Amino acid sequence: MIELYAAPTPNSVKICIMLEEVQLPYKIFKLDFTKGEHYQPEFLKINPNAKVPAIVDRDNLLNVFESGAILLYLAEKSGKLLPKNSESRAEVYQWLFLEASGFGPTAAQIFHFGQLAPEKIPYAIERYQQEALRLLAVIDQQLTHRDYLAGEYSIADIATFPIVQGFAYAGLPIGDFANVGRWCAQLQQRSTVGRGSYILFQEPAVV
Amino acid sequence: MIELYAAPTPNSVKICIMLEEVQLPYKIFKLDFTKGEHYQPEFLKINPNAKVPAIVDRDNLLNVFESGAILLYLAEKSGKLLPKNSESRAEVYQWLFLEASGFGPTAAQIFHFGQLAPEKIPYAIERYQQEALRLLAVIDQQLTHRDYLAGEYSIADIATFPIVQGFAYAGLPIGDFANVGRWCAQLQQRSTVGRGSYILFQEPAVV
Ligand SMILES: N[C@@H](CCC(=O)N[C@@H](CS)C(=O)NCC(=O)O)C(=O)O
Ligand SMILES: N[C@@H](CCC(=O)N[C@@H](CS)C(=O)NCC(=O)O)C(=O)O
Repeated sequence: MIELYAAPTPNSVKICIMLEEVQLPYKIFKLDFTKGEHYQPEFLKINPNAKVPAIVDRDNLLNVFESGAILLYLAEKSGKLLPKNSESRAEVYQWLFLEASGFGPTAAQIFHFGQLAPEKIPYAIERYQQEALRLLAVIDQQLTHRDYLAGEYSIADIATFPIVQGFAYAGLPIGDFANVGRWCAQLQQRSTVGRGSYILFQEPAVV
Repeated sequence: MIELYAAPTPNSVKICIMLEEVQLPYKIFKLDFTKGEHYQPEFLKINPNAKVPAIVDRDNLLNVFESGAILLYLAEKSGKLLPKNSESRAEVYQWLFLEASGFGPTAAQIFHFGQLAPEKIPYAIERYQQEALRLLAVIDQQLTHRDYLAGEYSIADIATFPIVQGFAYAGLPIGDFANVGRWCAQLQQRSTVGRGSYILFQEPAVV
């Protein structure tokens, strides 16, 4: 049994989609940031970085934080969505890390400077919107000759898709990227992706 | 033979340290950003995201970009610095991804708003300095009860160390973090880390 500590945000959605894909039994614990639940000592034992998602694998009493690490761990545990062949696996790694170091942090800055920051700073707002468009162009090009980011459907797609959806909600013109659009539509057709994408937005989250 | 495409910056230093550690033969190609060499078509074939580090493994004609992906690939290729046991490996993954999604992007924003941005924006400068200090506190706490981030010395340390050094060069008070200081000193004692840290700053880089 996997316990998932989560909130209705793209980083947590990645793990819901993954758990739906690999069909491991799981239970969601939603954290309320407005109550500071991510700073509670019990949660800091699971993730000292005070962020969601994080998991506890009750089968072996292991805690894992960082969505990229959780995806790798669950792929290895289930033997799914990560190629066995080392060259193909490296291809997944590179797109997984481009999400972790590029798409994810850029989405967080767009949200911060667009929604949270007490002052509107045009330079910063522009900077991260441009970076998101630059990154979308990189994957759009990759998706001209591939169905999925690393060829076969993998954890790299699961990591990147919720962030790209987040860019769309933030008003970025993702319709300008035809291959990204086709890739999103392909993913949305998977019932696992559909279920994983909305489960955190239900009240209460039911698995 | 590994070809490393690099520049004298912390992200590239990670891979130099790794190559020194695992003792795989390698050759460095330094890219000059001022000449836009990272936007040359030949390099974009290796990394469509136009950043260093990237490698070409001539043994199997494989390209890999993103420092985290390269570290994982080289750890698997060499059988070193990544535990075989899945629980211990997951622990490495989580610190590796905290570097990729936290330390690395924060360092890049400190550099951008501190050095490159045409206007000085106090809010942004302060934001990323505070985030760096927050992250340093997270690893400082982890290092109270561990010699290395994930227990044993691993690619998580190799990823994080050059960025922490970068924070020091940027003037952050890393001396306030005693365990981080001890960990840096331990790493600096390794000849591999020493050699990997300075090789890109030599002219010409000689391997
Ligand atoms: N790199 C992390 C990012 C996690 C993250 O930023 N989580 C956000 C929600 S999407 C969070 O917990 N924010 C609470 C806070 O920062 O106070 C991952 O991929 O897991
Ligand atoms: N997440 C990437 C970051 C790579 C990166 O930002 N590289 C910088 C140098 S440290 C670069 O190539 N900058 C050139 C540019 O952005 O134009 C990694 O870990 O490899």
